[in-house]
Amino acid sequence: MHDLVIIGGGGAGLTAALMAKKTNWDANVTLITNEELSYSPCALPFVIGGEIEGLDKISKDITKICEESEINCVIDTVISIDVEKKLVRTEKGEELPYISLIIATGGIPFVPPIPGVDLEGVYTIQRIEDARKIMHALENAKNAVVIGGGAIGLEMAAAFIKRGLKVTLIERSEHVLARPLDPDFSTIVENKLKEKGVELISCSSVQEIQGEGHVENVKAGDRTIPADIVLLGAGLRPNTELAKKAGIETVNEGIKTDGLMQTNIDDIYAAGDCVDSKSMVTGKLMLSQLGTTATRHGMIAGMNAVGGCATFEGVLNSMTLKIFDLEIGRTGVTKRDAGENEIDIVVGKVKGTTKSSYFPGAKELRIKLIFNALNRRLIGAQVIAEEGVAGKIDLLAFAIAHNAEIMDLMKLKYCYTPPVTPSRNVIVSAAENALKKLRRMMEIRRRRF
Amino acid sequence: MHDLVIIGGGGAGLTAALMAKKTNWDANVTLITNEELSYSPCALPFVIGGEIEGLDKISKDITKICEESEINCVIDTVISIDVEKKLVRTEKGEELPYISLIIATGGIPFVPPIPGVDLEGVYTIQRIEDARKIMHALENAKNAVVIGGGAIGLEMAAAFIKRGLKVTLIERSEHVLARPLDPDFSTIVENKLKEKGVELISCSSVQEIQGEGHVENVKAGDRTIPADIVLLGAGLRPNTELAKKAGIETVNEGIKTDGLMQTNIDDIYAAGDCVDSKSMVTGKLMLSQLGTTATRHGMIAGMNAVGGCATFEGVLNSMTLKIFDLEIGRTGVTKRDAGENEIDIVVGKVKGTTKSSYFPGAKELRIKLIFNALNRRLIGAQVIAEEGVAGKIDLLAFAIAHNAEIMDLMKLKYCYTPPVTPSRNVIVSAAENALKKLRRMMEIRRRRF
Repeated sequence: MHDLVIIGGGGAGLTAALMAKKTNWDANVTLITNEELSYSPCALPFVIGGEIEGLDKISKDITKICEESEINCVIDTVISIDVEKKLVRTEKGEELPYISLIIATGGIPFVPPIPGVDLEGVYTIQRIEDARKIMHALENAKNAVVIGGGAIGLEMAAAFIKRGLKVTLIERSEHVLARPLDPDFSTIVENKLKEKGVELISCSSVQEIQGEGHVENVKAGDRTIPADIVLLGAGLRPNTELAKKAGIETVNEGIKTDGLMQTNIDDIYAAGDCVDSKSMVTGKLMLSQLGTTATRHGMIAGMNAVGGCATFEGVLNSMTLKIFDLEIGRTGVTKRDAGENEIDIVVGKVKGTTKSSYFPGAKELRIKLIFNALNRRLIGAQVIAEEGVAGKIDLLAFAIAHNAEIMDLMKLKYCYTPPVTPSRNVIVSAAENALKKLRRMMEIRRRRF
Repeated sequence: MHDLVIIGGGGAGLTAALMAKKTNWDANVTLITNEELSYSPCALPFVIGGEIEGLDKISKDITKICEESEINCVIDTVISIDVEKKLVRTEKGEELPYISLIIATGGIPFVPPIPGVDLEGVYTIQRIEDARKIMHALENAKNAVVIGGGAIGLEMAAAFIKRGLKVTLIERSEHVLARPLDPDFSTIVENKLKEKGVELISCSSVQEIQGEGHVENVKAGDRTIPADIVLLGAGLRPNTELAKKAGIETVNEGIKTDGLMQTNIDDIYAAGDCVDSKSMVTGKLMLSQLGTTATRHGMIAGMNAVGGCATFEGVLNSMTLKIFDLEIGRTGVTKRDAGENEIDIVVGKVKGTTKSSYFPGAKELRIKLIFNALNRRLIGAQVIAEEGVAGKIDLLAFAIAHNAEIMDLMKLKYCYTPPVTPSRNVIVSAAENALKKLRRMMEIRRRRF
């Protein structure tokens, strides 16, 4: 009998296993995974782009990690969950009975139903073997087409440029990063892509991927773009097949869990990219397929599954990306999210510098803070600069989580020295800008009466 | 009649003037200053070190700034305040009557009573003319001695090294930065100083500065150190002479103010380096001679002096320094401060990296969080790394100001991408480390019974 069986050895699953042992060393914990390596999928584009030297640098033998923490590691694939008998069945014919179960089956890259997606040379990127295949293909490639301007699409476009390819990025909507950023901030990223040689085709969808056996062209709108490599960056779908077959409830696309990360079936928990999370701002369920969310899910599920007690506080989708020399960060809701949730907002937006503007090497920094206009609370933020973005996003995420209002940010006890950070803190300036706008809005209303 | 007279055109005084006009455009605001340039004194060591090209880059004509905001700028020196008649008298014989007065007379570098301090070649650094003199002296100098291992002392030692001098730093106490940092973090800075060629003599005080007209040697302990330049970095004393003569109350060394930045005399406010501030952690009055504090003082005093209403929330002494390639940051109290204030603490301390450790260019990062052991609230933090320090200090200062507990930091919604910031956030790790220690402390207590 296994006290805890975990399906999936990605960030959520492995964290859950380690946390379960940390919580209850005597628990008999078994991790079932179909990958022999543990790695951060977020690092793959940087190996492909040649910044990180080789896949060995980012991966570890998962059986070794498990061994060190006395976790049983089973390299196999689970084919069904029997919720009545409380056991899982594997491809190799094993039956593993459990007291608690954690489903951490992750996500599957979405393959859009375009004619020709099954041609050779068309890739998705999520697993280490995807990276291997792409790196092999790169040896003889000259032209790459990236379909989808999300985080992965952009990172891969940058990687292909770094490897000397001609790159075309096709994005269905008007802007890249249309979900995480507002259009004004997406535009900054688009300018950087163009500056670095990426041809960007927006408001366009792919009709066909053409070729004889191997991809040769991508047809989008009236364009036929030569391609030796096509990268599908159309997002991840939660991998919920196993869960659904077992009668576990899903919502939107992911598995539904409560604050303890438990599903609708007792003793079955879920964690990571296959799970829906509650937004800390809107309270609504949403997908938050980030490594950080998976880790946090895994911690909570792992703890609770062996007798601990922790609750998951929700997500802000705090995120950072590095596209060429730009660091792009965001947390909370965008203007668009606020609109969809009928939240009246006031936005503070300023342009500043990363160091004192007179200090050599100071870079431009753009920041945008989104406040709920009714209670003045911070609900979202976007920052773009060549340095110092992550710390600001983390601060702003902390501020959102702690219900900070405009004035709280204006009182920020920031530090200052010319070679590191300017005397006018950009967060304070953006908050002041929001307050000014709010006062103007109030003044206009007042004058109406 | 002047609605508001401000004595002093440094950070506090000028900010106060600008804020007064922002608050009440019709107010007749007069700024009296004995310097024709406005600049950040914090930038001077970097001009001297040659990183910033020339003093012009960092200074502006103060009369021009005032003109733009319709502030009357008087270049003169105030010699007395007549609190009965509500007017100030200047060196040039002017009498300026006021409704409100702000004293922003700043600080004066402390000159320790060492024989020979008045020799040529011995400098303090606070004003732009000090920088000019030192830069002139540097042209023929080979050996520099810096007396005092505080922030200014270290920045100047680094500047001298950059200019090719042989540098000896003499510090009275056991460690440099003995007030802002704990010894373990001071040691990291000391190692950097030594690595870059600064000879560090600690636990030693200077007996005499020797020379015929011009400095030639510095005698400290049994050492006689050749010196063409001596820099006194013994801190600033609040410049309270005018205030004291006028009967304005001081405390410790600075002017005493209430939460509105008002002194014991109605309508007389004070701001900047001449004022004592209340610590947000201990509630005690202390000196916080930072540009950021002066600015905040100035904002509050300027607003209140012309009919606005704002309160000063206190200080955390959030600070950052760049010494060679090290960014050093701190906020709140140190272990030593906590001891002096009889606060039981638990410390979380970890070593991490600035990016994912496998990413090229990742640098070591050291962080220390100090929590009140009784209520688990964050009360202090220290961070040292080659990048990303300021954002973390700002976040931790915000957390202190918002009474964040260990668990709040463990739940930080941080962002992650390998080239920018690691998947294990160092703040979260340090908080976890503190919790582990706290649990161990509790376990030990439990076992006693």
